[in-house]
Amino acid sequence: MNRFKLFTILVLSAIIICTSCNKKESDMKQKNLATTIIGMEKAALEKWNNDDPSGFLAIYAEDITYFDPFQEKRIDGFKNMKDYYESMQGSVHVEKYEMIDPVVQISGETAVLSYNLVNQAGNEIYRWNCTEVYRQQADKQWKIIHNHWSYIRPMDK
Amino acid sequence: MNRFKLFTILVLSAIIICTSCNKKESDMKQKNLATTIIGMEKAALEKWNNDDPSGFLAIYAEDITYFDPFQEKRIDGFKNMKDYYESMQGSVHVEKYEMIDPVVQISGETAVLSYNLVNQAGNEIYRWNCTEVYRQQADKQWKIIHNHWSYIRPMDK
Repeated sequence: MNRFKLFTILVLSAIIICTSCNKKESDMKQKNLATTIIGMEKAALEKWNNDDPSGFLAIYAEDITYFDPFQEKRIDGFKNMKDYYESMQGSVHVEKYEMIDPVVQISGETAVLSYNLVNQAGNEIYRWNCTEVYRQQADKQWKIIHNHWSYIRPMDK
Repeated sequence: MNRFKLFTILVLSAIIICTSCNKKESDMKQKNLATTIIGMEKAALEKWNNDDPSGFLAIYAEDITYFDPFQEKRIDGFKNMKDYYESMQGSVHVEKYEMIDPVVQISGETAVLSYNLVNQAGNEIYRWNCTEVYRQQADKQWKIIHNHWSYIRPMDK
């Protein structure tokens, strides 16, 4: 084998190894971010279940947009969400919750979390579809810019 | 006014004008993108209303995740969505539709479209909350990575 061939093989091997390492590093970063996002969501849910909306309010962005099964129209903006959640206080007591099959789709500074949620309150079971769009802010914090709650097969109830 | 002062004023004015132009250009780009995304959605809806799912399937990404009020669980992936939509063919005939208050939240390569939709089919009116998360692909095409449909106040029906 001449020197040129050996050099070419070494360079190509180095490129392949680097690409593979970068891919692994990128996969690891995405996995860590997904874990972070799911952890943020669970922390907010656990406060919510004890009638405390401050967990969600702390991670709602100024330009939050919001759908749920109780409102005629989308709620737009942090101030309106704060008023809405404050109006609901005293009504939320969830004893057990289960987050089912969370998936986080990451694209640059955006992470879309979707999952099913089963809440138990006394003898009642509430089953939800949930979408949360998280966006990384200029200060590097992740906040929710869009939230959509709906009942699973609502006409079955 | 000495030359130094004049020079400083001219440079500062140039910076202010450039910043303002860049801001205007960026706002214009975001407005154009919002119009494009809303146009893509309406084109897909108009095919859908005539029992043709090809409009949505053409703009669903490989990793699409999907919620609606009829499924027990989220549908994941293009192939499963194609099977689902094909199983529904023959059942969709919407005569009139109205897209209400569409908002597009743009962050880098992601655009979150949310709106209310009112569909009329014969004497029936169907009222929807809709979330669509569009992402720009490597080939610069915008495709939907997440779609969430729910009824507005479903327990009222």
